[in-house]
Amino acid sequence: MINVGIIGYGYWGPNLVRNLNETKGISVCQVSDLEEKKLQLVRARYPRIDITTESDEIIYNKSIDAVVIATQVSTHYELALKSLNAGKHVLIEKPMADSSKKCEELIKLANNKNLLLMVDHTFAYTSAVRKIKEIITRGELGRILYYDSVRVNLGLFQHDVNVIWDLAVHDLSILEYLFNKQPLSISATGISHIRDQLENVAYITLFFENSLIAHIHVNWMSPVKIRRTLLGGDKKMIVYDDLDPAEKVKIYDKGIHTFENEESIYNMKVGYRMGDMWAPNLDNTEALFRLTNHFRDCIHGKDEPVTNSLSGLRVVRMMEAATISMGNNGKPEKFNTRIL
Amino acid sequence: MINVGIIGYGYWGPNLVRNLNETKGISVCQVSDLEEKKLQLVRARYPRIDITTESDEIIYNKSIDAVVIATQVSTHYELALKSLNAGKHVLIEKPMADSSKKCEELIKLANNKNLLLMVDHTFAYTSAVRKIKEIITRGELGRILYYDSVRVNLGLFQHDVNVIWDLAVHDLSILEYLFNKQPLSISATGISHIRDQLENVAYITLFFENSLIAHIHVNWMSPVKIRRTLLGGDKKMIVYDDLDPAEKVKIYDKGIHTFENEESIYNMKVGYRMGDMWAPNLDNTEALFRLTNHFRDCIHGKDEPVTNSLSGLRVVRMMEAATISMGNNGKPEKFNTRIL
Amino acid sequence: MINVGIIGYGYWGPNLVRNLNETKGISVCQVSDLEEKKLQLVRARYPRIDITTESDEIIYNKSIDAVVIATQVSTHYELALKSLNAGKHVLIEKPMADSSKKCEELIKLANNKNLLLMVDHTFAYTSAVRKIKEIITRGELGRILYYDSVRVNLGLFQHDVNVIWDLAVHDLSILEYLFNKQPLSISATGISHIRDQLENVAYITLFFENSLIAHIHVNWMSPVKIRRTLLGGDKKMIVYDDLDPAEKVKIYDKGIHTFENEESIYNMKVGYRMGDMWAPNLDNTEALFRLTNHFRDCIHGKDEPVTNSLSGLRVVRMMEAATISMGNNGKPEKFNTRIL
Amino acid sequence: MINVGIIGYGYWGPNLVRNLNETKGISVCQVSDLEEKKLQLVRARYPRIDITTESDEIIYNKSIDAVVIATQVSTHYELALKSLNAGKHVLIEKPMADSSKKCEELIKLANNKNLLLMVDHTFAYTSAVRKIKEIITRGELGRILYYDSVRVNLGLFQHDVNVIWDLAVHDLSILEYLFNKQPLSISATGISHIRDQLENVAYITLFFENSLIAHIHVNWMSPVKIRRTLLGGDKKMIVYDDLDPAEKVKIYDKGIHTFENEESIYNMKVGYRMGDMWAPNLDNTEALFRLTNHFRDCIHGKDEPVTNSLSGLRVVRMMEAATISMGNNGKPEKFNTRIL
Repeated sequence: MINVGIIGYGYWGPNLVRNLNETKGISVCQVSDLEEKKLQLVRARYPRIDITTESDEIIYNKSIDAVVIATQVSTHYELALKSLNAGKHVLIEKPMADSSKKCEELIKLANNKNLLLMVDHTFAYTSAVRKIKEIITRGELGRILYYDSVRVNLGLFQHDVNVIWDLAVHDLSILEYLFNKQPLSISATGISHIRDQLENVAYITLFFENSLIAHIHVNWMSPVKIRRTLLGGDKKMIVYDDLDPAEKVKIYDKGIHTFENEESIYNMKVGYRMGDMWAPNLDNTEALFRLTNHFRDCIHGKDEPVTNSLSGLRVVRMMEAATISMGNNGKPEKFNTRIL
Repeated sequence: MINVGIIGYGYWGPNLVRNLNETKGISVCQVSDLEEKKLQLVRARYPRIDITTESDEIIYNKSIDAVVIATQVSTHYELALKSLNAGKHVLIEKPMADSSKKCEELIKLANNKNLLLMVDHTFAYTSAVRKIKEIITRGELGRILYYDSVRVNLGLFQHDVNVIWDLAVHDLSILEYLFNKQPLSISATGISHIRDQLENVAYITLFFENSLIAHIHVNWMSPVKIRRTLLGGDKKMIVYDDLDPAEKVKIYDKGIHTFENEESIYNMKVGYRMGDMWAPNLDNTEALFRLTNHFRDCIHGKDEPVTNSLSGLRVVRMMEAATISMGNNGKPEKFNTRIL
Repeated sequence: MINVGIIGYGYWGPNLVRNLNETKGISVCQVSDLEEKKLQLVRARYPRIDITTESDEIIYNKSIDAVVIATQVSTHYELALKSLNAGKHVLIEKPMADSSKKCEELIKLANNKNLLLMVDHTFAYTSAVRKIKEIITRGELGRILYYDSVRVNLGLFQHDVNVIWDLAVHDLSILEYLFNKQPLSISATGISHIRDQLENVAYITLFFENSLIAHIHVNWMSPVKIRRTLLGGDKKMIVYDDLDPAEKVKIYDKGIHTFENEESIYNMKVGYRMGDMWAPNLDNTEALFRLTNHFRDCIHGKDEPVTNSLSGLRVVRMMEAATISMGNNGKPEKFNTRIL
Repeated sequence: MINVGIIGYGYWGPNLVRNLNETKGISVCQVSDLEEKKLQLVRARYPRIDITTESDEIIYNKSIDAVVIATQVSTHYELALKSLNAGKHVLIEKPMADSSKKCEELIKLANNKNLLLMVDHTFAYTSAVRKIKEIITRGELGRILYYDSVRVNLGLFQHDVNVIWDLAVHDLSILEYLFNKQPLSISATGISHIRDQLENVAYITLFFENSLIAHIHVNWMSPVKIRRTLLGGDKKMIVYDDLDPAEKVKIYDKGIHTFENEESIYNMKVGYRMGDMWAPNLDNTEALFRLTNHFRDCIHGKDEPVTNSLSGLRVVRMMEAATISMGNNGKPEKFNTRIL
């Protein structure tokens, strides 16, 4: 049995506690939050779980094996550092930390201490994204040409991070999971529409090898909510609409193929095939439940973490590069591919 | 009665001929095309219209008052130049020419000769875009924050121009029409997925004064066709979906308003209003028919051209700047706002 | 404080308990269910609520003022009868009972005992249906011409009632709420596709005075889930799509008006107006929470029940008539409009 | 070469003329219409086709081999009768005639004269309906359980026929084509909302052998246009949405299968499989062009008519039965299955 403590019971914490609580082999022992009101929610729902306003009580609780951090980004580093130093396995809510330098330090520490350090990039555990990965791995799409994602909503303003750190982090972690490739360079544009606030709309282009291009549009001020990704291959293409309850993933048997024009060697034409569309059935398992089970297996050394600390680092590096480019109105930033 | 000749009966020419033919006060006299097969279509449909493979026969036809040019972009300049020199009024299919320098020359020539020079930016004549302009002009949206357009399709490859010149031209001309403002700078990214071909996917960001940002996503290789524009204001917002037959334009009574947080003067929060949605009924008049009637009125001096030669020039300049930036992976280009 | 006991913690019971538990002035004291497993769920979630497998313990619990019945339809009558005889106010999950005769008995008993007897026709408490009622009441639709509802899903088979009693009950209670009119006659058709089972697909037509016609299509075996109602008036019309998260209720400024044709007095033509569409913003309050607050106010005599026992009776009568007609392949049944 | 004359150039006539004109082996010689204005349209579009206001000029034109009748329903019988008596092959716009008795007479006459008599049930020639037929024929759906169609629009009022004869005729002819089965009985309800006019809304249920049920909802007064058919089988199910430009036909790998419950032999449960969805690519050929080519082949004896005169008769009989039942508020009508 792995004893787990959760720090932070705000927006995402309740989902983590609920899923950890239902995961075999995991026992949720303690939950902390700075707000007493949040802790009362824990008490009402889970009378057997200890509550505290002091995260240190979890970190230095000897009966606890693993700490789950679901607080504001700015506190991730310090809490993870303490937890690792106290000999705990750590799962951090995305993004891993607010700078790549801090991520690097945490990774080194975890390596030295031989502890598990994982990041909760939840989308990598959704049935939809896993199905897409499966299709790509089978080679059905052929050569991948582009990844284009729109992730906009009329949501709450984040005052501590810009829209890239809040929303684009999802797409960047999906890219990490699907392609396992690092970009060559990144160009981003964006703007803040509220005086003295961080950017609320942003557009990021990532250039990869072999003409793979990825683009992410994030916006906190849309009149409608959109979560739609186009994924183009030279054999097939995918539309992934996360808001479509019935058919989230559609595979189109449409690719491109080129052929030479008889009239002229220079006037190449591009022919299109158009074929069937197929929407595979998706498993209903909650993504976070997959993650908490996977977390347990990784602690036991039975599995390798899918969203490990290096992927957490790379996602943060992409956001750093994008934010710099955005400050320069799109001037491209070379991507740092050093391992640590 | 204005006698009109049309050069080019390819993709768009038939629509121009059909609408010109039904416009009171206009008489379509002659149509030219390089392909005999196309001319046979004209003959079958309009037995009374003269046909010719020589555009010069139209340009130097003394009974013709106005020439409409619907050929490949690379030929626009020369045909317009000759027509203006021959004393004809000219309507050019978008984009006006393949370089801003050529546009400037044509404008000067038309001014000197006191002839009408207009560009067929068709979207400015659609009921949907005109309704949006009307709503903006009434101030209903408040301060405009962003224009975001997705215009992708599984279309035919253009081998003579990149996807910006083929598809983004529509959004740039809509921006011209709606805002009458020139961008400060432009950043664009894009790529070609076919060896030795021009870019087939592109992303353009335009920065305007007062934090107005515009973004255009164009792609020839999408699995699905999308034509959707989000237009955000601080009072209301619009979703314009050109493929929705029933409700192309939806106005959301959702804007943003900021307020101070009682806990801290620094932690400004942003509150959202969410209200009704309203989809105005749109007039069924064909956009091109509005244009051909307007063309007649402008020739008679009864109206000022909505899509005049200066707007044609500015759209070409935007495409030039975007193409340069795209070649530099997003490095922003300052926009040339000189009048001529 | 009103002390409440809930009988039945199956599909709907948890929602009732959750909302009653959050309703000011109501104290949930006891929950019963035949299955011990269900009661353990109550215990885990609400450690302070008493649990029991014996409904009689609730019915004869002296500290309890009101009983909420959320069991299978076939048990409603007996449980309500006992509860009323024990002097409790009663709220019954829809449908009120499995025969109109039983409904009549319960109504008489409640009247004699001066106790509240209400039915949980939840849709009457949704923001969407209330907004529609408001629009009708303001006269915006003009004369109501038709109500047409499709309510199909790939759901679980009910082996104790046919699809009319399971799904059409919702539309019949909406009709009751919106129009407060009883039908003149009812014709229904339907079929069972599983040997020895009750009908799984049904079509019901209700004829009202003044040419108002209502039609309900219910089906347990659809490939897709649909919940869509068309409501036609001679001035405006409504589309109510309960599965549309953003725009459930759309009002179309399209009605009909007739006019005489100048050519012939007999050849009447009908002209259509087509106008704007408007989707009002809807309040997010949970319907059941409105109901539980209303239940409390009705017990205190501060309000009259919206979904009272007579509406419960009329809905059951409609289902009885429809089931008889369905057995006769559509032969219309006259509707019994006697009050009791 | 088959010489063809077309009687009627109203709503559908222009489509027939256009397609016949492009059909190899067919020569359109003459078009008649009562309105001179319509004939001027023919002249402008097809200078080589003769025009006349007298249908007799076509019927008794010795150079004409086949007559196509696209006039009001009430005139079909007389025009077809004359044409057959004059030795012409005949294609009649749907519905075949305004009574089954007249259809029977025409069939006998055509048989005696050994002439082709076909009905233009266009939907049987669409790519979507043909694809559905193909899927049914391959047995993919398993046992067919139901056909459910909604065909409503905000269209023009027909003053000469009720909404069944105007709109339901399409679904009845699709049923004919797909299943080749005659109903056992028919129940229909409907109403007229305009004084002294025929019914503008109707609901038809058709009962077939083996528990196959079909339902058709037609309405001229909907706020929105809907053309959607659900087709349920015990193995797979289809959603056919004729207004979806991209994915008209979707096949769901969802059927039903029953199994015995271990707890009780009487409490059968029904389990659902839920699987993938598949939207086949559809051929773009215009349905009417398939029909006109097929008409030519049938005249040459190279093919048997898909929509022959007997299917025309059966569709008319269904409409007659439905109209009688509708007059009796749903009382079912036994269907006449006599061959002639």
